[in-house]
Amino acid sequence: MRFFSDNAAAACPEVIAALSAANRLDTAYDGDEWSKRLDGALSDLFEREVEVLWIATGTAANSLALAALCPSHGAVLCHRDAHIQNDECGAPEFFTGGAKLLLAEGDGAKVTPESVETLIGGIRRDVHQVQPHALSITNATEYGLVYTPAETAALGELAKRHRIGFHVDGARFANAVARLGCAPADLTWRAGVDALSFGFVKNGGLSAECLVFFTPGLADATRYRRKRAGHLASKGRFLAAQILAMLDGDVWLRNARAANAAAATIAEAAGDRLILAAEANEVFIKVSADEAASLRAQGFDFYDWGPGEARLVTSWDSDPAHVAALASAIRAL
Amino acid sequence: MRFFSDNAAAACPEVIAALSAANRLDTAYDGDEWSKRLDGALSDLFEREVEVLWIATGTAANSLALAALCPSHGAVLCHRDAHIQNDECGAPEFFTGGAKLLLAEGDGAKVTPESVETLIGGIRRDVHQVQPHALSITNATEYGLVYTPAETAALGELAKRHRIGFHVDGARFANAVARLGCAPADLTWRAGVDALSFGFVKNGGLSAECLVFFTPGLADATRYRRKRAGHLASKGRFLAAQILAMLDGDVWLRNARAANAAAATIAEAAGDRLILAAEANEVFIKVSADEAASLRAQGFDFYDWGPGEARLVTSWDSDPAHVAALASAIRAL
Amino acid sequence: MRFFSDNAAAACPEVIAALSAANRLDTAYDGDEWSKRLDGALSDLFEREVEVLWIATGTAANSLALAALCPSHGAVLCHRDAHIQNDECGAPEFFTGGAKLLLAEGDGAKVTPESVETLIGGIRRDVHQVQPHALSITNATEYGLVYTPAETAALGELAKRHRIGFHVDGARFANAVARLGCAPADLTWRAGVDALSFGFVKNGGLSAECLVFFTPGLADATRYRRKRAGHLASKGRFLAAQILAMLDGDVWLRNARAANAAAATIAEAAGDRLILAAEANEVFIKVSADEAASLRAQGFDFYDWGPGEARLVTSWDSDPAHVAALASAIRAL
Amino acid sequence: MRFFSDNAAAACPEVIAALSAANRLDTAYDGDEWSKRLDGALSDLFEREVEVLWIATGTAANSLALAALCPSHGAVLCHRDAHIQNDECGAPEFFTGGAKLLLAEGDGAKVTPESVETLIGGIRRDVHQVQPHALSITNATEYGLVYTPAETAALGELAKRHRIGFHVDGARFANAVARLGCAPADLTWRAGVDALSFGFVKNGGLSAECLVFFTPGLADATRYRRKRAGHLASKGRFLAAQILAMLDGDVWLRNARAANAAAATIAEAAGDRLILAAEANEVFIKVSADEAASLRAQGFDFYDWGPGEARLVTSWDSDPAHVAALASAIRAL
Repeated sequence: MRFFSDNAAAACPEVIAALSAANRLDTAYDGDEWSKRLDGALSDLFEREVEVLWIATGTAANSLALAALCPSHGAVLCHRDAHIQNDECGAPEFFTGGAKLLLAEGDGAKVTPESVETLIGGIRRDVHQVQPHALSITNATEYGLVYTPAETAALGELAKRHRIGFHVDGARFANAVARLGCAPADLTWRAGVDALSFGFVKNGGLSAECLVFFTPGLADATRYRRKRAGHLASKGRFLAAQILAMLDGDVWLRNARAANAAAATIAEAAGDRLILAAEANEVFIKVSADEAASLRAQGFDFYDWGPGEARLVTSWDSDPAHVAALASAIRAL
Repeated sequence: MRFFSDNAAAACPEVIAALSAANRLDTAYDGDEWSKRLDGALSDLFEREVEVLWIATGTAANSLALAALCPSHGAVLCHRDAHIQNDECGAPEFFTGGAKLLLAEGDGAKVTPESVETLIGGIRRDVHQVQPHALSITNATEYGLVYTPAETAALGELAKRHRIGFHVDGARFANAVARLGCAPADLTWRAGVDALSFGFVKNGGLSAECLVFFTPGLADATRYRRKRAGHLASKGRFLAAQILAMLDGDVWLRNARAANAAAATIAEAAGDRLILAAEANEVFIKVSADEAASLRAQGFDFYDWGPGEARLVTSWDSDPAHVAALASAIRAL
Repeated sequence: MRFFSDNAAAACPEVIAALSAANRLDTAYDGDEWSKRLDGALSDLFEREVEVLWIATGTAANSLALAALCPSHGAVLCHRDAHIQNDECGAPEFFTGGAKLLLAEGDGAKVTPESVETLIGGIRRDVHQVQPHALSITNATEYGLVYTPAETAALGELAKRHRIGFHVDGARFANAVARLGCAPADLTWRAGVDALSFGFVKNGGLSAECLVFFTPGLADATRYRRKRAGHLASKGRFLAAQILAMLDGDVWLRNARAANAAAATIAEAAGDRLILAAEANEVFIKVSADEAASLRAQGFDFYDWGPGEARLVTSWDSDPAHVAALASAIRAL
Repeated sequence: MRFFSDNAAAACPEVIAALSAANRLDTAYDGDEWSKRLDGALSDLFEREVEVLWIATGTAANSLALAALCPSHGAVLCHRDAHIQNDECGAPEFFTGGAKLLLAEGDGAKVTPESVETLIGGIRRDVHQVQPHALSITNATEYGLVYTPAETAALGELAKRHRIGFHVDGARFANAVARLGCAPADLTWRAGVDALSFGFVKNGGLSAECLVFFTPGLADATRYRRKRAGHLASKGRFLAAQILAMLDGDVWLRNARAANAAAATIAEAAGDRLILAAEANEVFIKVSADEAASLRAQGFDFYDWGPGEARLVTSWDSDPAHVAALASAIRAL
């Protein structure tokens, strides 16, 4: 019973079906009919004209977004626990040509306007220090918390005031939207966001993420950078088709709701063990080494987050029986 | 009737079936059972121990190979018409951190020991010029010719003598092997090759290529570079499964033979129009603008290679009826 | 008797005196009084407002200029024999983050509007090829020829039409101006030039070159890139003082005229041996291996340019007796 | 009366004299007689064979050293307050091609074996995180403390154990040696150091620093990187001559002792105001805003380090009268 990572989940049936449906001769790269429908489909979803590039991984989507917002001699501001800082092997540095990531504080991997202002305030305005060019947040965060539309907008206002770009790593954007019940626009362009890495893979996709640009012009150079990074798949229709399949009928929301609900069940069972509110599909709990061993002995697989802490991740296809079993097992500890 | 590019072909049934078969919960990235079987499968094929990384595109495979062989202050030697020089938007420069590509001559996009020696001979051995660190050839070439084992070995010997790495861009490696009827080893490590970009996508794959290292040690840093370039897919099993499906029962050779045979049929029909021998799955013919228009009017789609020249590309799934129709149409010009 | 390279010449007395004069406590980096006078001094010389950065080498000046004009995914157009292509160990690639240099043809290392148009015409307008972002010429060229104001303006017009930047490598800009007798403005901004690497070191300086920006805004990011490249000297006043000393009283022109005159003397003696017109301070002549050996036996040091060819370079401090001796020796061959 | 920065000091007379002495025709770049003497002179000083490259700035020396020790996909470990992290505008990232700097703790900008072990211990050994490849310390530190031979050796032992390189930023190495009275070897190779940025500019030089490699082989690629970064000065003899002049007769130590002594005088006067021991040529003291204003009103120039803190820097040429005046003024606060 696997609560290790949503990366390990299966692809949902709609995605598999879409691959078969797209399996016919068409134009290479992104000249095919599916790829051409992406801008429209996501413009509908976001209630404004957007430019969209499919891309195989979230790391690449994040890095391409940051390269569009920050020059090689600049700095990206992010949380100390951000995925771009800790889990991408320096991909942002690679794609930007050596920009620096400067780290802000905040509980649950959430930056605040105050922590970001403190960070910016500490940067001397001279050529000896890299200057801030972009702010990047993760929604839902690496600790399973969400930024509300108001919180996002406050950061967007800050970014605008300092004339820096604003990127959202949305590897679990679907889970955030599902949790908040808001419009996708409320967490993005209406809040001042320039670019969103819109994750599908953790949420039931197979190999396709979206890079969504809300600010006109940013996509242009990114198309060259995507090719140059070896990310312009020659049979791009298979990526576009996955995304379209998940947008169609709001499969993406259905999947995220399922994952969130499973996490809520576990979180409720965890009670006082809960370290942070489980606002998306991740549950962080206190467990002793013996308790962790006991859970594992019962067949539950998960990640040791730190001494005495475990991370339990649900996904769109978490088996309800497994979830119930885990909830019972935690209660019984 | 599409003879534009093998990139536009469908994925073969075995690949589609493999995706469904691999669609269950497993470990993320390359920790799954399919990914773990790759080294063994390709070691069997190449008759020696190799290290293999799946990767989504040929451009990324080529660039990662070159980054493993050439430092940022070095030079890669390749043909003037090489894909890495003309069709990858500077990906080799991006992945290597700014190495230079120095260009050798040769008919049909084939370099020769002589042309490479001439190129090397023109480089001053001082710090003002970038020094050669790698040789890269494409087999089959961008013009549909093949390097024989002996030709490859002669270049391998040259590379060894100059102590530079040797890379093969094998986007159409299957077509070369199918044509030559030799062992894959004869075109690679037995001929002194350090790294091979082994293409599957043009040959019936969906989104998976292989980077095969014959020289121990080269894979180590490449694993970090792959992650850093956003190419470590979180559901890597879907890439590994495609490759295993195409290796199983030699589907890769079956597909390549079909494409080559279709090209041979067209080449035979072309007669004196043939610009180069059609040794793989590309046919370059002389056609006037009127003739090209006539072919297009009959429903044939293809690439204008230059004034008075057309490129016709076949693929594993070229419809025999379309091939026969094209052959007739060319004869009738 | 040294005719090997103007790089090997001494620094002129005004420069040495300026170093002593500047040797007192002042603000670090470029906050000192000498550095602050540079913009004004060069704005006067160029008859318009310019922004100037001192920099220690011509290679760094060229590369910073190119980085200001060309993104990492773009291309710089230059002559096949350009210093930036052949003699800077990939510095343009390093500073731009991996842009490509695309090579134009032309006699005597001079590109023409036609050769540049041919080069641009061969670039496909898709994301698979790097797109042109800058044109770079060398004046005087690596072969000692000069671009006239009209020739420069024709290239500037081309650059404007294609919306690409225009850079002049002026390692021997002084020699070109001295030869042409025109205003420095005529070879730069009036001809559409955005940035000039204005060389002083070969012309009697010790360690200071200038990067002059005619197009507002380009200097801003360059100040960060200069620091980031380790080129913001902490005692920058010693660089600024050299340049001011050479501008004062037109020492730069006096020096260049002396070098040009010495070259003219040698060129006249060379007669039919002359390979190219000696328009600046370099003379390329035909000599057999025996003749070259004979000249060397008489104490003349110079560079073998190619089989049967020698390069003779004069400098601001070429000893008239040595020049006369060389002229005689060549006549006597 | 200037206590702002040792960067602003004058060049010492021996250096100025050396420039004049070197001002004659010689071979360009580093082929001249002065440059050729460097390896020997520094091998003598360090009591073993070393390889030396002159370089114009400390930022470039540091970055070239780090590029020799750390690949683009790796990490450099350094103190949170290191110059390479905070004052070089991302130069290490630029020269390494995007390596990350990971930050260790410690008082007075000094790391300890414990703080470095803690940092390393927090790095997961997988491809998602950059792995440590080098440790860099500054001696004397940015806060004017020194690492003793034993402290350096303990870090060297740690580096060896983790198989990572060890670099010393010695912008004020002379001040550390002068303070400790040890052999230069004791602070470098005998303590496991691979590369030293040996600073001369702050200590009375004009424009020359040294990059000293103790580990054979590291210099080779660095020679290309130096050229590629635009740091191979064409009249390199003027850099080499400065260094030789400062080594001759231990001018470097004489200068450093003078600066240290001036700092000691001020530190003694500071008494309880002293924030850290003044072990080199920097004094950090507590002063209120009013007190700082009072000092400035008396003609003293210095840097506000933080709220209620001032940094006072002495140099080789600090006027004893000014130093005495400052000591009195501080006592009188």
